[in-house]
Amino acid sequence: MLTSHTSTTPPGGSAVDLGPAVALSCRECGERFPLSPIFACEACFGPLEIAYDLPTGDPEALRAAIEAGPHSIWRYAPLLPVPADVASKPNLNPGDTPLVKADRLAAALGHGGELYVKDDSGNPTHSFKDRVVANAVEAARAFGFTTLSCSSTGNLAGAVGAAAARAGFRSCVFIPHDLEQGKIVMAAVYGGELVGIEGTYDDVNRFCSELIGDPAGEGWGFVNVNLRPYYGEGSKTLAFEIAEQLGWRIPDQLVIPIASGSQLTKIDKGLKELIATGLVEDRPYKIFGAQAEGCSPVSQAFKAGHDVVRPVKPDTIAKSLAIGNPADGPYVLDIARRTGGAVEDVNDAQIVDAIKLLARTEGIFAETAGGVTVGVTRKLIETGQLDPELTTVVLNTGDGLKTLDAVAATTGPTAIIRPNLDAFREAGLA
Amino acid sequence: MLTSHTSTTPPGGSAVDLGPAVALSCRECGERFPLSPIFACEACFGPLEIAYDLPTGDPEALRAAIEAGPHSIWRYAPLLPVPADVASKPNLNPGDTPLVKADRLAAALGHGGELYVKDDSGNPTHSFKDRVVANAVEAARAFGFTTLSCSSTGNLAGAVGAAAARAGFRSCVFIPHDLEQGKIVMAAVYGGELVGIEGTYDDVNRFCSELIGDPAGEGWGFVNVNLRPYYGEGSKTLAFEIAEQLGWRIPDQLVIPIASGSQLTKIDKGLKELIATGLVEDRPYKIFGAQAEGCSPVSQAFKAGHDVVRPVKPDTIAKSLAIGNPADGPYVLDIARRTGGAVEDVNDAQIVDAIKLLARTEGIFAETAGGVTVGVTRKLIETGQLDPELTTVVLNTGDGLKTLDAVAATTGPTAIIRPNLDAFREAGLA
Repeated sequence: MLTSHTSTTPPGGSAVDLGPAVALSCRECGERFPLSPIFACEACFGPLEIAYDLPTGDPEALRAAIEAGPHSIWRYAPLLPVPADVASKPNLNPGDTPLVKADRLAAALGHGGELYVKDDSGNPTHSFKDRVVANAVEAARAFGFTTLSCSSTGNLAGAVGAAAARAGFRSCVFIPHDLEQGKIVMAAVYGGELVGIEGTYDDVNRFCSELIGDPAGEGWGFVNVNLRPYYGEGSKTLAFEIAEQLGWRIPDQLVIPIASGSQLTKIDKGLKELIATGLVEDRPYKIFGAQAEGCSPVSQAFKAGHDVVRPVKPDTIAKSLAIGNPADGPYVLDIARRTGGAVEDVNDAQIVDAIKLLARTEGIFAETAGGVTVGVTRKLIETGQLDPELTTVVLNTGDGLKTLDAVAATTGPTAIIRPNLDAFREAGLA
Repeated sequence: MLTSHTSTTPPGGSAVDLGPAVALSCRECGERFPLSPIFACEACFGPLEIAYDLPTGDPEALRAAIEAGPHSIWRYAPLLPVPADVASKPNLNPGDTPLVKADRLAAALGHGGELYVKDDSGNPTHSFKDRVVANAVEAARAFGFTTLSCSSTGNLAGAVGAAAARAGFRSCVFIPHDLEQGKIVMAAVYGGELVGIEGTYDDVNRFCSELIGDPAGEGWGFVNVNLRPYYGEGSKTLAFEIAEQLGWRIPDQLVIPIASGSQLTKIDKGLKELIATGLVEDRPYKIFGAQAEGCSPVSQAFKAGHDVVRPVKPDTIAKSLAIGNPADGPYVLDIARRTGGAVEDVNDAQIVDAIKLLARTEGIFAETAGGVTVGVTRKLIETGQLDPELTTVVLNTGDGLKTLDAVAATTGPTAIIRPNLDAFREAGLA
């Protein structure tokens, strides 16, 4: 079992095959390490990310190969840390989710240019998490792990449980013991071990870090800890799909939710790789980050002109974005400023309004994170930060079915009537 | 407004363009009627279905055109009652859902041949209903309807609400007033009128029939009543996708759930059209119908060798299949017998077991209807009715998130522990 970065050769003797991925690279100091299940730089403790030998020679051929590929994220295998034959292995094959041209939403927001919603609720377990977990699974296979694990507040637990079941791994995932029953059912139904921790999500996280350093955790791949560099790359596929669905074109503006900030930074990385490989024209784009007011440390830092992100205690209905100390916060600030974007936030009432607006204009029922991006888009237009005459893509990363409580109190029947035409007419419905 | 079958020319004067659809044809007596919003034969009261002028001349060209089409059911527009430019109109673009090669499920069931699960939970509102509603929307557009409606026990209401929102129709859907709150929220969030009827689903149905005959219902398209012939055709796309995903090949055996029986009969129709157009080789296939024991009128008739289906009062957790008097029951019997298939049923405990089996082997969390088809597949193998050495496709038509209650009582954490390694070891999880 590989537990250090000193080798990419597993016990069996053959080299790790993760396609075009050639090394881990420190985001801070640039130090390189062999591909292995580590996540922090030995030199400076900076976060590690994947370095590639990207196919830059023949963009036309690459584009044709992608277009002939499977209807999933694996069509982009030449740009991901996965073996070339990944599509033949059992996994959930996420991706290929709709990019919806949202004309009715655009009219409601006063957006005159092309407005799109990238709707990731179409993934197998109905959130973008399937993209990142699928990449972590391939790394786990490559490193010889036999158990998949994670710390989670619910959604990730389900995504890991489902992916492990399909790929034939044992899974053991950790959640706070007092989650809503619905989330517990969704996480447990795939038959893996589900362990409730008596404590907060922070306690769950700390415990997982302990477990990685202990013999009890030997052979375990924690998708969002020791496999994090591989896991994170899955978010790049959002950038790839959006560009391909626009006819191999980068949109002028993207509005992306911020939890840890990883997704936003990886979408930026994906856009840069699209340009580097010649798959798209090199043109400027602006990236906007979206937070809930009740957990808006990056938005606050952006508005104050700070480079550091001061942790907050989350208090918002957007629970999938409720990370008070976002690891990639400083990188998000950097990207928003470098591209000419911004970071904004909306309050809980605005989130609920935005969920309903998206539902009634486009028939998309988003989870609270989608309410955050749509609500922030509206605010960015109203405050003149986003240009409504350009092409804009707004991300919905999850499914309203998982956060019914957010809208339940204010969503119900128009009328309740007896089954006859007189009652129907009296209710003013004719 | 067209309310009779005497014309296919709407008030505007131009002819109805529904692509290759040329007429309505009575399934019983063969009498033909112009395309219009009617659903029963004037001569014999038999159900009407769509007659086509199908493209039979050049299968290679047709296959190439389909393969170059959009990643949705609209790639099959040449075989559906929709205009050729349907993909450019605002709709939910359902379809292109995964056909999952289910090797781990096959091993658990003792199925040695290729076993696939067609997982329709990937549709926009997470059930196959999006396929049929999308076809009804195009008919509603063609006939100049401005309001979409239906009677529903929940899932269809959401599918209609979402499709209407996206396509810019008013919607007004009818449900029993005492549905679970979750289903009410899912149906109401799209912003259309949602009317709770004080009565049973049968009362809701009867009221909708009254409304169609009343001036108050003028301009209303009821997707599952006066648009039913168009609506039903959407189920054919399951046959088309399965065949294309198998490399333009019809599987030996299909296991399909039965509610009204419409889906099963339309999949059979789709398979016959694939053969008629030369898109696939003409080879035999067997169709198996799956019911819940608590609502198994077709299964009972099949086993007793009857041609008529005696209505029952449903009592099962598989609520989306709980139609006690299935309109297409006799046709289902006919198809099962003609193709050499069968109709079987499983009880509620077997349904729950099958949901969990599918989840833990393939990472697919099915609604109760998926538990019915997987459970019935197991039973068909055990009783020697289905050949486990051939290629079999099992349908999952909906999403476990919508029927959490079915598994909640028996699905939970493996352990609840304090956040330390000693507690972890004591729980026997290492």
